Amino acid sequence: MMRNTHSVRGPVVPSRGPVRPLGTDEVRIAGGFWATRQRVNGETTLGHALEWMDRLGWTGNFATAANGTGSRERKGREFSDSEVYKLVEAMSWEHGRAPNDELNAQINALTTMIAAAQDDDGYLHTAFGRDWQRPRYGDLAWGHELYCVGHLLQAAVARTRTAGDGQLLHVARRAADHVCDTFGPDSTGICGHPEIETGLVELARLTGEQRYLDQAALFVDRRGHRSLPAHEFGWAYFNDDVPVRKATVLRGHAVRALYLACGAVDVAVETGDDDLLEAVAAQFDRTWARRTHITGGMGSRHQDEAFGDDFVLPADRAYAETCASVATVMLAQRLLLATGDSRFADRADRVLHNMIATAIGDDGRSFFYANTLHQRVPAQLNGDGERLDVGGGLRAPWFEVSCCLPNLARLLASLSSYLVTADDTGLHVRQYADCDVDTRLVDGLPIGLRVRTSYPDGGDVTVRVTRSGGPWSITLRVPDWATGAVLVVDDERRPVAPGDVVLTREWAVGQEIRLELPMRPRFVWPDPRIDAVRGCVAVERGPLVMCAESLGEHDLDAVRVCTGTEPEQAGDGAVVRALVEAPLESPWPYGEPSARPGTPVPLHLTPYHRWARRGPSTMRIWLPTT
Amino acid sequence: MMRNTHSVRGPVVPSRGPVRPLGTDEVRIAGGFWATRQRVNGETTLGHALEWMDRLGWTGNFATAANGTGSRERKGREFSDSEVYKLVEAMSWEHGRAPNDELNAQINALTTMIAAAQDDDGYLHTAFGRDWQRPRYGDLAWGHELYCVGHLLQAAVARTRTAGDGQLLHVARRAADHVCDTFGPDSTGICGHPEIETGLVELARLTGEQRYLDQAALFVDRRGHRSLPAHEFGWAYFNDDVPVRKATVLRGHAVRALYLACGAVDVAVETGDDDLLEAVAAQFDRTWARRTHITGGMGSRHQDEAFGDDFVLPADRAYAETCASVATVMLAQRLLLATGDSRFADRADRVLHNMIATAIGDDGRSFFYANTLHQRVPAQLNGDGERLDVGGGLRAPWFEVSCCLPNLARLLASLSSYLVTADDTGLHVRQYADCDVDTRLVDGLPIGLRVRTSYPDGGDVTVRVTRSGGPWSITLRVPDWATGAVLVVDDERRPVAPGDVVLTREWAVGQEIRLELPMRPRFVWPDPRIDAVRGCVAVERGPLVMCAESLGEHDLDAVRVCTGTEPEQAGDGAVVRALVEAPLESPWPYGEPSARPGTPVPLHLTPYHRWARRGPSTMRIWLPTT
Repeated sequence: MMRNTHSVRGPVVPSRGPVRPLGTDEVRIAGGFWATRQRVNGETTLGHALEWMDRLGWTGNFATAANGTGSRERKGREFSDSEVYKLVEAMSWEHGRAPNDELNAQINALTTMIAAAQDDDGYLHTAFGRDWQRPRYGDLAWGHELYCVGHLLQAAVARTRTAGDGQLLHVARRAADHVCDTFGPDSTGICGHPEIETGLVELARLTGEQRYLDQAALFVDRRGHRSLPAHEFGWAYFNDDVPVRKATVLRGHAVRALYLACGAVDVAVETGDDDLLEAVAAQFDRTWARRTHITGGMGSRHQDEAFGDDFVLPADRAYAETCASVATVMLAQRLLLATGDSRFADRADRVLHNMIATAIGDDGRSFFYANTLHQRVPAQLNGDGERLDVGGGLRAPWFEVSCCLPNLARLLASLSSYLVTADDTGLHVRQYADCDVDTRLVDGLPIGLRVRTSYPDGGDVTVRVTRSGGPWSITLRVPDWATGAVLVVDDERRPVAPGDVVLTREWAVGQEIRLELPMRPRFVWPDPRIDAVRGCVAVERGPLVMCAESLGEHDLDAVRVCTGTEPEQAGDGAVVRALVEAPLESPWPYGEPSARPGTPVPLHLTPYHRWARRGPSTMRIWLPTT
Repeated sequence: MMRNTHSVRGPVVPSRGPVRPLGTDEVRIAGGFWATRQRVNGETTLGHALEWMDRLGWTGNFATAANGTGSRERKGREFSDSEVYKLVEAMSWEHGRAPNDELNAQINALTTMIAAAQDDDGYLHTAFGRDWQRPRYGDLAWGHELYCVGHLLQAAVARTRTAGDGQLLHVARRAADHVCDTFGPDSTGICGHPEIETGLVELARLTGEQRYLDQAALFVDRRGHRSLPAHEFGWAYFNDDVPVRKATVLRGHAVRALYLACGAVDVAVETGDDDLLEAVAAQFDRTWARRTHITGGMGSRHQDEAFGDDFVLPADRAYAETCASVATVMLAQRLLLATGDSRFADRADRVLHNMIATAIGDDGRSFFYANTLHQRVPAQLNGDGERLDVGGGLRAPWFEVSCCLPNLARLLASLSSYLVTADDTGLHVRQYADCDVDTRLVDGLPIGLRVRTSYPDGGDVTVRVTRSGGPWSITLRVPDWATGAVLVVDDERRPVAPGDVVLTREWAVGQEIRLELPMRPRFVWPDPRIDAVRGCVAVERGPLVMCAESLGEHDLDAVRVCTGTEPEQAGDGAVVRALVEAPLESPWPYGEPSARPGTPVPLHLTPYHRWARRGPSTMRIWLPTT
């Protein structure tokens, strides 16, 4: 019987590991960069998503499935049930964070609706199995039945951890039991889209039910043997080409690959399977080194939403799906908890500030599905006023496939659980945001911190002890980019190198530590094997990738940056020296090399996450050099 | 009533224009580069394609549709009828070129089978309209009904021009009449995939039937008003975003765009619509200048088989569909005939030698669907021994969508009609291949030429007069790349610049002209706006694009070419000086610029069309410079 982890209010709560997560009640975001986003998420995004799901009939599908009378037409794609579950998960975290009767009532209503659609044997999906529908599990590759259950389990875990046992956990357990009954040791079935694995492990963690963990382990080990039908995209698309523990890199459909990696880490941690854990960590390392955009975005191909080969990282047709970034944060968090290694927090930092923060509109009602690094032509609205092209360079209120918005919502609502971890000796501040931390050490010692910072725009981080009573440690992460950081403690300044700084002492309430991170903008060069951005530089400032954006003032594709002079800070952005080259038209674009005269200009850069917030524009992260 | 062009055996026979095409009986390929390919096409490819279409049931669909009893299951996609028609077209040109009783019988059998599936009112498509099928024209965007008819008409034109009036022309006329009855002036319908336009015009040219031309003009003018339903890919995909005469560049699905452009030129020529003609020529010019790979390949996006924005021309995910190249040759030929301008022959030359010659395997039983310019990882066969991924770097015997193979076959079988044109005063040799030309001038004067050359590997072209009897002109094209060409006539050598060289005199039989084209390999640089190949050079030799190919001896992505020394000829390829850089692994591929030591190597390059003929390999056309 596994340890019950009922008491921690967070989305990933391993029963073992070198560090443990803190719940959303133990770490509260108090202001700044993420507080705004979390507030907008709660006030606007959740309602916006529910409104769309109601309007499109995705919630209505549950009612239709339940009564079996009247219209039998089902709306949306096979995976639309999962969007409702992700929304319930997001609502649950939000209600846990900022209790709200109306939201609570919405969750209960959705839960009742979901419960009514569950079959007597526990099976739950609105598109399959009824007289007038296709049979259950007749199309494991594309049916998304187990995928949807996985999201249901995550929703139930969120609801239970924030509001106690209730109807949704009952539904989830019955669904999980049905999955275990159907796909046990004698079965060979796996779902075309991984997700059930991580859902089952978290449900096992919550309930202590070993059976769910065993089933997740079966699913992880079963994949990679080409048991799904052949498809134009190849077995790699489903990660069914090579077993998880033998693979060397993430490949195929990016979200599928990352969700599977999450489930595999969960299984590895709970079963003590160090080989599996190391295999996934090595895959993530290699993917980070060779298949990740500078923004932290993953997945370079539009056609199959997939990873490309090593170093295939086009800026202008980057896919970098928002859901893949949510999944990257999930994977980084799992590996952080499994290893305690701050490199995984470095990765989450990059993805949070350059992908997650970019994907959602200021209004909370619009989002990017794909996240390009180079917009050549300003986005154009289609005739109906909505963008249909997911790669179009404008945030849209909705897409036909709108997995990303509820995915962002559940991450934002539970974000405080990603900021700080604990071990027997103290706390590790993993991400810098204004937050208040209040927890106990294993021995019961109450400890607390107040973190205040202007991060990511500023590099000052002040950590003040708010509760103490004995010796304990505070660990700060010096980000991987922060060469030249300074730590100020007890009025003493000392340089600190990237990595962890551990400070152990008998902390007094009111005592402060200050970390000063270098915020001068810097040029960043790509590995020469990345063909797509050869001859270019990018500019970063702190954790933020900068971009040049033009609403018409510059033809960004004619700009050439002079790298002889370091970039200067300008507001919360940067300015570099550049030339704007005169266009030279030719009937054929290949021939003699041409020297083009250029006009010197200062080129202003702003954080990438700000782009496309003022209307259609062109944008470049990677800037050709002179 | 239009002029009947029954007597010219070629696929494109305008009733007016500055130059006229010669038929396949007037120009015969006698040896060399294209003779081999034409022979393999006739001996192997046609049979291979028929075998696959029989096996997959694409031919059988006609029998099923005809009898309406027994199995009613239809095989293949909505456009599979068109593959059968393209094959019949290819067979017809082949039989016209090299008469063959067995082939003739096959054509007749297929014709009978096709005729039997035609409905009483002339409608012909095996997937729609019968009791057990979807209704006719219920899905114009995706149904491909008019598209298929377009290919039927082209097949019937080929058959009639090479074998005289017969059953297939009867079927085609009835189908065309049905289209005119259904989609006349009161209709707003267009097909999601252009093709009917060019088919109707050619049938009008063949039969003199004005009605078919009028209908084609209606279809051309009707497109571009967003009458097709909205789709994720946007209206541009269907070229339904902007009217043809208002567009400035080819866009959307490449084959759709190019077929539509062909139909628009055909309509413009026959109706004397110079505005329309100029619009399409300008679109082609701009597309050539900004949206074409160095190979002449068009369409840079896998997802929607579409053109990218200007200068989005990735080497490693180039789509460059084979069918788009066939269509580019078709469009170039139409504009050549409409304008007489040899720039269009230059384009056809590049596409023929670098795309068409590349797409088909030496065995005539394998082909590329997509044509990448950079293969990073050797192709891997799927478990079933066949490549399913169209971009995979190995020629495959068949794909689920196999439009390209019969498209290549019809072009190769009719290729001699693309080599030479005529006007009232003489002949223009447009493409260099061993061929024998025998025709008459408008005044009846019999004239003839014998062209012998080692082109494209060699630069020598000898043109010998074989029939003459008065003054006439011989025009030779000096290709756009051929700076430094020399013309030898009457023992006199003189330099000739790229463009047309016109020689008019009273030619004597046996008289010879020699053209010497410079075949020294040369570096070619890309326009700096093409991000994907910034910092790279390519090497060309004559009309051929060269590539580096590695079966394991080099890591091509670590090679850096030294451009200080000109490339040297080596056999029919080239050799350049290069360094192979030592790999430098890093956990994150963005940071400080790195100087990597390199080992000098001579790097051998071979014609691109030869690549992937010795098994899985890596390949690069664009080579990073030191």
